Amino acid sequence: MEQQPSSVKPIAMLKDELDIVIPTVRDLDFLEMWRPFFEQYHLIIVQDGDPSKTIKVPEGFDYEMYNRNDINRILGDKASCISFQDSGCRCFGFLVSKKKYIYTIDDDCFVAKDPSGKEINAVEQHIKNLISPSTPHYFNTLYDPFRDGADFTRGNPFGMHDAEFTHGNPFSMREGAKTVVSHGLWLNFPDYDAPTQIVKPLERNNRYVDAVMTIPKGTLFSMCGMNLAFDRELIGPAMYFGLMGDGQPITGYDDMWAGWCMKVICDHMGWGVKTGLPYIDHKKASNRFENLKKKFNGIFWQEQAVPFFQSVTLPKECTTVQQCYLELSKLVKKKLGTVDPYFIKLADGMVTWTEAWEELNTTPKGN
Amino acid sequence: MEQQPSSVKPIAMLKDELDIVIPTVRDLDFLEMWRPFFEQYHLIIVQDGDPSKTIKVPEGFDYEMYNRNDINRILGDKASCISFQDSGCRCFGFLVSKKKYIYTIDDDCFVAKDPSGKEINAVEQHIKNLISPSTPHYFNTLYDPFRDGADFTRGNPFGMHDAEFTHGNPFSMREGAKTVVSHGLWLNFPDYDAPTQIVKPLERNNRYVDAVMTIPKGTLFSMCGMNLAFDRELIGPAMYFGLMGDGQPITGYDDMWAGWCMKVICDHMGWGVKTGLPYIDHKKASNRFENLKKKFNGIFWQEQAVPFFQSVTLPKECTTVQQCYLELSKLVKKKLGTVDPYFIKLADGMVTWTEAWEELNTTPKGN
Repeated sequence: MEQQPSSVKPIAMLKDELDIVIPTVRDLDFLEMWRPFFEQYHLIIVQDGDPSKTIKVPEGFDYEMYNRNDINRILGDKASCISFQDSGCRCFGFLVSKKKYIYTIDDDCFVAKDPSGKEINAVEQHIKNLISPSTPHYFNTLYDPFRDGADFTRGNPFGMHDAEFTHGNPFSMREGAKTVVSHGLWLNFPDYDAPTQIVKPLERNNRYVDAVMTIPKGTLFSMCGMNLAFDRELIGPAMYFGLMGDGQPITGYDDMWAGWCMKVICDHMGWGVKTGLPYIDHKKASNRFENLKKKFNGIFWQEQAVPFFQSVTLPKECTTVQQCYLELSKLVKKKLGTVDPYFIKLADGMVTWTEAWEELNTTPKGN
Repeated sequence: MEQQPSSVKPIAMLKDELDIVIPTVRDLDFLEMWRPFFEQYHLIIVQDGDPSKTIKVPEGFDYEMYNRNDINRILGDKASCISFQDSGCRCFGFLVSKKKYIYTIDDDCFVAKDPSGKEINAVEQHIKNLISPSTPHYFNTLYDPFRDGADFTRGNPFGMHDAEFTHGNPFSMREGAKTVVSHGLWLNFPDYDAPTQIVKPLERNNRYVDAVMTIPKGTLFSMCGMNLAFDRELIGPAMYFGLMGDGQPITGYDDMWAGWCMKVICDHMGWGVKTGLPYIDHKKASNRFENLKKKFNGIFWQEQAVPFFQSVTLPKECTTVQQCYLELSKLVKKKLGTVDPYFIKLADGMVTWTEAWEELNTTPKGN
C-alpha cells in the first residue's frame, strides 16, 4: 500500500473502515473530550461486570453495546473464551466488528497535547502508522523512514526478500513490510506494573518523544491495550486477550498475552508492529495494592512466558494467522502447561477463540 | 555499574578516562565551537591523506597527532590494516589510546541545539549513555528505562540470566546489561547513502527525538562514525573500521562494517548498544555523485553482508572480544570470500588488526 501524502485523505477514506472498541464498567463521560475525533466513527462498547447496570453514552455517538448476557447469547458455549471482570473482554468487540481496522482505548484515557499545545488526534496518527510500511528487518536510526523528512540511513539494504522468507509475503527492504499493529503511548500515568507503581507512586511520564518506530523482528515488547490500533482483517485472529479476571488465577495480563502471541506471528508472517506516537493522556492508574494482589501470578509466570515466546519458531507450513495461532496454542499447552495447569485452560481458550472467529468472520483477506 | 544521578559527577570523574578521536585532512577550525565541551579532554588526531601537509589545531587543546608516516613507523608491517584516504583511518586512534572510553567525531560536525535553544554537550550525553545500563533482551516502549522519569513498563521480566546465556556476563532483566556503545545522531544533513542523497538533495533532519534506546539483541543497524562513543576497554578490539579507500575497491563503509561486527559480538557477550541522543549539527554531506562512484561496490556487497551478519552465530567457546573477532574473521573469509576476493583481504586485515591491538594493548579488563 502506498503511503498517503496528506493526513486528511486517509481519515476521510477510512471513516467506514475503522471501529473504536471500548471496554468499560461505567458511564462513558470521557467520550465528551474525544467528540471531535471519535464522532465520525462507529463505537463498539463492551460492558464488563454486572450486565444489569446501565452504561450512559453521551449523545451523538454511533455505537453498539454488548454486556455479558449478549456475549453469552451470541457465542453460546464459546463465550467461555471471553474474559469477565477484566479489560480483556474488549476482544469480543474485535470479534463482532466487520471493519478492516480497530482502534481500542480505555475509558481513563483522554486527549493529550503535543509540545506545541495542539490536541493530538490519536485515531489519525494510528491510521497513518497502519497505512505506511514497517521496517522489522533492519533498525533505522532515524526511526520511521516513511515519515516526512526522514528516510533510510546509509547502509540499509535495498534487496528483495522472497515469499519464502516471510511465508507468503514478499517485500523489498526499502519499501518495507506491511504494518498490522500500531501501539500508542501514554503521557501522565505510565503503564507500570504493581511493584513499580508501589515504589514510584508519583512518577508521571512527561516526555513527548516525537517518534514512531518498528519493533524489530525477533524482539518482544509489552503491548498495552490502552491506546492500540490494528489491522483486524490481517492480524485480528491473533488479537485474543486471553482468559483473565473472574474465575481465573490471573488478571491484567490480557494485553501482554495478546502482544506476545501477535508479535511472534507477525515475525513469522514478515509483518510490522509499530510503537510510539500517538500519545493519549492517561488520567489514572488502577489501584496499585489491588494490582499487586490480583497480578502477582502474572509476575511469576511472565518469567516463563517471555522466554517461551522468545524461543517459539512456527513451522513454515503455517501460512495463515489462524494456522499460526492454533500451532501456538499447542506449544503453549505443551511448554507452559508444565508451569501451571492454568496455561492448559488458556490454550483451550485460544482454540475456542479461533473457532468463534471462524464462526463470526469469513476468512480474512490477505492470508 | 550504578547510574549517576547527576550529569556533573561522571564528567568530572571521567575527564581522564576518555579520548576524543578525530580523523581529518584539514585544519581543525571546527574545534573552536567545541572548545567549552572538548577542552578538558585529550584529543587524538589522525591525519589522513598527504602526510607532508600541516594540520592546524586551535590553541589551548591537549592533543597528539598521527599522520601516515607515524602510522607506518608505529605499526610496521601491520600498518597495512589501517585504511588510507578513508575516514576508517580513525581506528588507529582507538589503537593508540590508553583510555577507557573513546568519543569520535567528524570535522564537519558542530554543536547542535536542543528544542529549548540550549547547546548540546554531546560528550556528556554519550558518557551518561555509556555508564547507565542497556536493555537488549526486551523492548521497553518508554525507551531508556534508566532515564529520569522513566522505568520499565508492565510485563517486562524481572529475572536473572545466568552467565551461560551471555558467555560470562550474568545480569538481571531489570538492572540491565552493560552498555558498550553509544551511537549519537545528526540534525541538519542526515546520514543518507549516495542514491538517497541524489534523490533528495535538499532533505535535512529537523526532528529532535528526545530518546535514547537500546538496539535489541539480534537486530542490525547502520553505525555511523560521525558522532560515536564506546567503551574501548571492553569493545575496542572489535572497533576495526576495515580496509577502505586508497588501493581498495570500496570506501565509506568503514563505520558500517565496524558496526555490524561489533553488534554481533555485543549480542554474543550480552552487552548493549544504544542509539539516539546526543545530536550534533552535521554541516555538510560529502559529494553525492563522488559518493556514488566510490561507494557503489558497497551498495552491492551490503546485500550479501547484512544477511551474513544476521545469520552469524559465534561459538560459546568464544568468551573474549578478541576470540569473537578472530572467529568472525574466519566466517567472513569463508562466507563472504565467495562474493568477492576483497573480503578475503578484509578478513586478513581483521586478523592483522587483532595482532596490532594485542601488541599495543594489554588484555582489556572485563573479559
